[in-house]
Amino acid sequence: MLGTERTPRVVAARKLLRRAGREKAGRFLVEGAQAVREAVTGEVRVHELFATPSAIERNPDIIGTAEGQGIPVTTVGDRVAEILSDTVTPQGLVAVCDLIDVPVAEALAGCPQLVAVLAGVAEPGNAGTVLRAADAAGADAVLLAGDSVDPHNGKAVRASTGSVFHLPVARDRDTPRVLAACRDAGLTLLAADGHGELDLHSPEAAEVLGGRVAWILGGEAHGLPESVLEAADHRVRVPLYGRAESLNLAAAAAICLYASAAQLRQTRRSRITDRA
Amino acid sequence: MLGTERTPRVVAARKLLRRAGREKAGRFLVEGAQAVREAVTGEVRVHELFATPSAIERNPDIIGTAEGQGIPVTTVGDRVAEILSDTVTPQGLVAVCDLIDVPVAEALAGCPQLVAVLAGVAEPGNAGTVLRAADAAGADAVLLAGDSVDPHNGKAVRASTGSVFHLPVARDRDTPRVLAACRDAGLTLLAADGHGELDLHSPEAAEVLGGRVAWILGGEAHGLPESVLEAADHRVRVPLYGRAESLNLAAAAAICLYASAAQLRQTRRSRITDRA
Repeated sequence: MLGTERTPRVVAARKLLRRAGREKAGRFLVEGAQAVREAVTGEVRVHELFATPSAIERNPDIIGTAEGQGIPVTTVGDRVAEILSDTVTPQGLVAVCDLIDVPVAEALAGCPQLVAVLAGVAEPGNAGTVLRAADAAGADAVLLAGDSVDPHNGKAVRASTGSVFHLPVARDRDTPRVLAACRDAGLTLLAADGHGELDLHSPEAAEVLGGRVAWILGGEAHGLPESVLEAADHRVRVPLYGRAESLNLAAAAAICLYASAAQLRQTRRSRITDRA
Repeated sequence: MLGTERTPRVVAARKLLRRAGREKAGRFLVEGAQAVREAVTGEVRVHELFATPSAIERNPDIIGTAEGQGIPVTTVGDRVAEILSDTVTPQGLVAVCDLIDVPVAEALAGCPQLVAVLAGVAEPGNAGTVLRAADAAGADAVLLAGDSVDPHNGKAVRASTGSVFHLPVARDRDTPRVLAACRDAGLTLLAADGHGELDLHSPEAAEVLGGRVAWILGGEAHGLPESVLEAADHRVRVPLYGRAESLNLAAAAAICLYASAAQLRQTRRSRITDRA
């Protein structure tokens, strides 16, 4: 029997599409095969799965894993899949999971080498894309500060393509407190800023990038706020060699995080060579 | 008097929203203050401007420049601005311009150091973002090969934030011919490929990146086609240090192009030091 009607559980799950509903329930929705697979095979607690018959047929591995873990799987019709989705093309597979964010102190525990701080990144696609780049660059944590989007937002989760499950994610609206926590963790604070005094490709920057750093990324429209720029140890600019006035946030973030990842490894290589 | 009705010129301009219309007329539409400003102050031929009264009020500089150049400015109502726009929030300012693409040979003239080849990049936002990153990285040309989107597509132009006017853009559906032209221009062909044998951050890659290269970027969904990978001199992977399975195209492109830009400059610096 297909549950095409709005059962109490569907109604409860639907509330998780909004931030207020997520905060109240302490849960969020994860949609689509890739993300749901990460959820059921990862450390996040999954409470239940809603799946259309065709999604069940397409993803026997996911359904099998979920059932093996005793996660209830409810077969639903297309209409229910639709109302549990915030996309125009629902994938027919939705998991209800515990929120995954941790306290900032926990995210920064254990001597992190590379951290991404999203300062006031409001656009969910941007936040998810930067999260994905941070994961790829081997960052140890992502911190969402200020008026940043909820990392449990459906579009942010999708844009992260699973990365939201791969590394500790923390959030705190109090940006100065987040920056102070990074400093206390021994990280050098680098603000990515188009007008920064330090050129990312300069020898001076290479020295800084070989250390443990927190990249502060944000300012989608008008750059990072002055208070954040002042709190940083260095304001680093991605040099513009052509005639473009700027890079978009996700591109600049990827370049900065990978510049750090490369330099960290080069510094390690030279240390090994020095010892030999 | 406001032209709120569909005059023959509005009807003709509206046809430029589609690729077939653009090809036939040899013209395209440029929307929004930033892009229109670039158009009227750049080398592209602008035939006319459509502007709402409020857009005229907001952009006296653009209107003044256009009128100074004898470009006809037609005041239109919101409804006309809407039908000349492919965005949900029309900006009320649209320019009719000559197509800007040049032949591939022309784009590759003059000993280019760094070229971006978009191979089958169908999503306009991706194409525009990569174009913007190529401009920022100081690329000498952008070539659209295979089933890539028309660079005159409205969304591509917007995502490029003016970069479409900053460097030579060429297109040719025949990808092998584009790659051969790059090779004839003396460029080393680097395919950005998640499974590439050359690690972007390896010392071996640094040597290659210090030379004149064409980056082949594409494969939004399933990677670059085998024939393109085979035609390249090197298949270069952006290393994945964390648990992310991949980077999105725009982020990978930005990282690759900037790695080249940095290495090109470092090589020049060492040459100068060597001579001193």
